[in-house]
Amino acid sequence: MSSTVALSGCFENWMLASSSAIFRRQLFLLKTLGGHCCRVHMERIHGAEGARAATLEADAEGIIRKITPVMDPRLYKGQAGKVAVIGGCREYTGAPYFAAISALKIGADLSHVFCTKDAATVIKSYSPELIVHPVLEESYGVRDDEKASVFGKVVGDVTKWMQRFDCLVVGPGLGRDTFLLDCVSGIIRHAREANIPIVIDGDGLFLVTNNLDLVKGYSLAVLTPNINEYKRLVEKVLDCEVNEEEASEQLKLLARRIGDVTIFRKGKLDLISDGERVNKVSISGSPRRCGGQGDILSGSVAVFSSWARQRLSSTKEATERSLSNPMVLGCIAASALLRKSAALAFASKKRATLTTDIIECLGRSLEDICPAE
Amino acid sequence: MSSTVALSGCFENWMLASSSAIFRRQLFLLKTLGGHCCRVHMERIHGAEGARAATLEADAEGIIRKITPVMDPRLYKGQAGKVAVIGGCREYTGAPYFAAISALKIGADLSHVFCTKDAATVIKSYSPELIVHPVLEESYGVRDDEKASVFGKVVGDVTKWMQRFDCLVVGPGLGRDTFLLDCVSGIIRHAREANIPIVIDGDGLFLVTNNLDLVKGYSLAVLTPNINEYKRLVEKVLDCEVNEEEASEQLKLLARRIGDVTIFRKGKLDLISDGERVNKVSISGSPRRCGGQGDILSGSVAVFSSWARQRLSSTKEATERSLSNPMVLGCIAASALLRKSAALAFASKKRATLTTDIIECLGRSLEDICPAE
Repeated sequence: MSSTVALSGCFENWMLASSSAIFRRQLFLLKTLGGHCCRVHMERIHGAEGARAATLEADAEGIIRKITPVMDPRLYKGQAGKVAVIGGCREYTGAPYFAAISALKIGADLSHVFCTKDAATVIKSYSPELIVHPVLEESYGVRDDEKASVFGKVVGDVTKWMQRFDCLVVGPGLGRDTFLLDCVSGIIRHAREANIPIVIDGDGLFLVTNNLDLVKGYSLAVLTPNINEYKRLVEKVLDCEVNEEEASEQLKLLARRIGDVTIFRKGKLDLISDGERVNKVSISGSPRRCGGQGDILSGSVAVFSSWARQRLSSTKEATERSLSNPMVLGCIAASALLRKSAALAFASKKRATLTTDIIECLGRSLEDICPAE
Repeated sequence: MSSTVALSGCFENWMLASSSAIFRRQLFLLKTLGGHCCRVHMERIHGAEGARAATLEADAEGIIRKITPVMDPRLYKGQAGKVAVIGGCREYTGAPYFAAISALKIGADLSHVFCTKDAATVIKSYSPELIVHPVLEESYGVRDDEKASVFGKVVGDVTKWMQRFDCLVVGPGLGRDTFLLDCVSGIIRHAREANIPIVIDGDGLFLVTNNLDLVKGYSLAVLTPNINEYKRLVEKVLDCEVNEEEASEQLKLLARRIGDVTIFRKGKLDLISDGERVNKVSISGSPRRCGGQGDILSGSVAVFSSWARQRLSSTKEATERSLSNPMVLGCIAASALLRKSAALAFASKKRATLTTDIIECLGRSLEDICPAE
């Protein structure tokens, strides 16, 4: 595909539904929902946004081709992406590994993991390709009178690396230890100050759902909730139940209410919104639901959104706001690549398909969409 | 290929540029550079060296065929090379593993790693093929009043093995802990006294750049800087910026100014100089820049330079000085083998190519150039 094709050309097959259909759905929502959430809908229903509520199937493969950088021998180490995963504790080691190794398999140059000491030995042993920092601490290892100083040390040990990263993934295998999550809050605040994009998944979503200020108004944040994490977010932010009938509208509202973030709602079909429009990715994946696929996704979003930022900063092509949001583009690309890789792995391994098998298919799937040369 | 072919025959296609072209470049350098660095050039410009400033494409495959030992069933364990990597700390375990396993995959008989206790368990778990010594210590594990005795123990624990090694690789995954680097300085001094070749990479270059006396005047030292490490070396030693227009001349000057060492400047094309002449290796590699390829290189230089020393000591063929420098020959061979292996891995894995994939191609690449029988 010629690199001179306009980025906006990827979006030709975004389909706008008619505003009348949207209006009918809004009426349905009014009838079936109550409370604050509904009032917000009432406020918006006659606004300009009404015409943009359709769920749009993204041209995900076109986006992948557009944002994936050309392989250029003149580039040096790091220029294709440097990603860090904050996660891994006494209980969980697989999740941060899956996220970090997926980033490398897609094409990032360097992938770091910041985890507890217990987790570090194990994560290192999974792969020599990762750089694993044993810096996080859980409550059981820290006396109360030490907490302030250990907090400072932990946050400092991570933030001294911060400027080197194109994106953080916060959450895979993080656990729910209170002290550890306090430290991670500190890390997120530093990342925001440094303008580093953040993908939040797993236990990171638990943290953020209870501390929305951590991401409120930060346009470089992506939340990637699964069905239960999404339910908790909707209940907390919109104070109502998940509404499948009006899934897109509710997602868009949620993103706006949290403020400027991008939300990737995982499901049978993936819905992605930054509050401006809702994008859908529904290409075939795998019926296998083995644990760990969400971690592949979070690592993939980190790489693709970094590439999208790089691409958008180097182009002057006019795109509308939502389609020029690198976090949205990264989500769409990651959704499609994971689905294709899972389908490929399932075709070969069937019921025995594991997350590792899907990771092994990331390279071939990307090559099928966007050949390296 | 017959082993009776003269070693100098490998260098038939070394091309000498005309001295007038060199003179023009020297003039350009005088115009564009300032300070002490330029004065050195001025001193040298009318000297005999002027005629030898051309960058020469090395016959790397010919060199590999010449220095790689014949597989002889009469040889016993160790005669094909014994290499040790000094590196591996709490944060880094992949790098020393990559360097040490690459040495074995090329054909060394034994590969040791000297690292911290934290790193040792992990590096051992990567491969049962390596001999891993948990002897290095970082500051956090040593009280101030213990430092003198621990220093002695650490240096002693490494140096008692020293005479067994054909080459040390100092730096992969070493980290920057002050106490650990002090111990490594002690190890380097002992290696020099024992006349053991040393390849210095990664954090070893950080150490040496700030302590140039460690390698000054040691002709069995090789420095393998990447773009950033090279920049720091040039700034420190030549007190000026990297000059891409006069890259070869500057590299040669740098090697001379440090004193007798060989420098392998990694980049889109590799430049290698011991201060006598500059050799270039530019055969196709891979556009992938995943972290760890520098570690493969350092392990490879260790093996090939050991083989080159062995070969040169057993032949009485007349060769000019630079072409009889085993460290230069080792660098040229390592550059070519890494490039071929990376190209082979990339042809199969594309964007998903990782350092482990390249290591898996070392054997086949060497076999393509120089069949074992």
